[in-house]
Amino acid sequence: MKNNFKVIGFDADDTLWINESYYRETEEAFFKLLSQFCDRDTASAVLLKQEVMNLNLYGYGAKGFCLSMLETALTVSEQRVQADTIGEIINLGKELINKPLVLLDGVVETLDYLKGKNIRLIVATKGDLLDQERKLGNSGIEKYFHHIEIMSEKKEENYRNLLSSIDLRPEEFLMIGNSLKSDVLPVLEIGGYGIHVPYHTTWQHEVVDDFTDHSRYLELKKITEIMGVI
Amino acid sequence: MKNNFKVIGFDADDTLWINESYYRETEEAFFKLLSQFCDRDTASAVLLKQEVMNLNLYGYGAKGFCLSMLETALTVSEQRVQADTIGEIINLGKELINKPLVLLDGVVETLDYLKGKNIRLIVATKGDLLDQERKLGNSGIEKYFHHIEIMSEKKEENYRNLLSSIDLRPEEFLMIGNSLKSDVLPVLEIGGYGIHVPYHTTWQHEVVDDFTDHSRYLELKKITEIMGVI
Repeated sequence: MKNNFKVIGFDADDTLWINESYYRETEEAFFKLLSQFCDRDTASAVLLKQEVMNLNLYGYGAKGFCLSMLETALTVSEQRVQADTIGEIINLGKELINKPLVLLDGVVETLDYLKGKNIRLIVATKGDLLDQERKLGNSGIEKYFHHIEIMSEKKEENYRNLLSSIDLRPEEFLMIGNSLKSDVLPVLEIGGYGIHVPYHTTWQHEVVDDFTDHSRYLELKKITEIMGVI
Repeated sequence: MKNNFKVIGFDADDTLWINESYYRETEEAFFKLLSQFCDRDTASAVLLKQEVMNLNLYGYGAKGFCLSMLETALTVSEQRVQADTIGEIINLGKELINKPLVLLDGVVETLDYLKGKNIRLIVATKGDLLDQERKLGNSGIEKYFHHIEIMSEKKEENYRNLLSSIDLRPEEFLMIGNSLKSDVLPVLEIGGYGIHVPYHTTWQHEVVDDFTDHSRYLELKKITEIMGVI
């Protein structure tokens, strides 16, 4: 891959640190709370439907997720869920926000390597700004990044706006992330470069068919392999 | 005031468009829902306390506000609130997000005037990115702004990060907003310029003692007065 990028954008959740696993843990605890009303699969299906329905209104992040859990509880209980369960669900949401920050293997090593190059590193994420700032602050890797870009979505238009806001041409930009749909495909579409580093769990709503053939694209098994290509 | 600013930042809520009045309306509807458990003043006091307690965790915006309303309902009802009321509170939050966008008087005229100058205009807000993008998209004034900067807080450090992310020196930056505490004082502190245009309602948590004396500061009665000073 060419290596005269001016800016490299890193996705945050499941690229730099653990995230999706925490959502899965929270969901399992939530399904257990709902077991008085329905089985796990029903709860899971209703929750996913509710989340996707709310996405336009709430966007991404733990607060919208918590509100979707609450609506799911109202639905599957047919409006019979008790106040104490509502309180427990709100607490599940708060615990999710407060989960410890665990960096993925090789992240520090890779960032340390990139620091030696004349490339500005940014975090480009569609999570919640406050959550992501908190995580970055707890991560010990804040010093490697120039700033955080929060995106309401990661579609072509959003990447175009991002590049315009930092006065960058697409061919000067590389995006690295665990989601083909959000981190790679839209960036390739607008003329930028993309590296996909998969995480073992992907939210259903983010799954796309595999895709491999593009001159400005690379798929790596581990983030440390970036050191071999840039 | 000097007029060779490179960037002018506009606060969004209650500077460009109506916001706080919508929160007040939502609160009144919420207090009515809780009247089965407590009087209006009690509900209001518990809600404010809950919001401030949650600020570190949830940040600003309608979703955190909705979650704080829910916790308030649990508290004042002593865990007796019914599922249908929970559903109504969630809907109040959704309605708040969907309130119509109403620009404040003189905003378009003022932006039109500034467009003629060689100054980049940005929106700098601590609201939720998705909410603010939606509002800006519905406002008809999107074309005047280069991009939206979302800030998790509006303290000195956050403004320093903002300026660093757009490679700007403080003396090249003017911030315009309705909150002395958030839009003016921290910008003055780091060496920038501030214009205060008060809105008739201010959230209690944003109120500071009046302040008038600073060489890089102006207080205006209406946003249109900007045309007389820049």
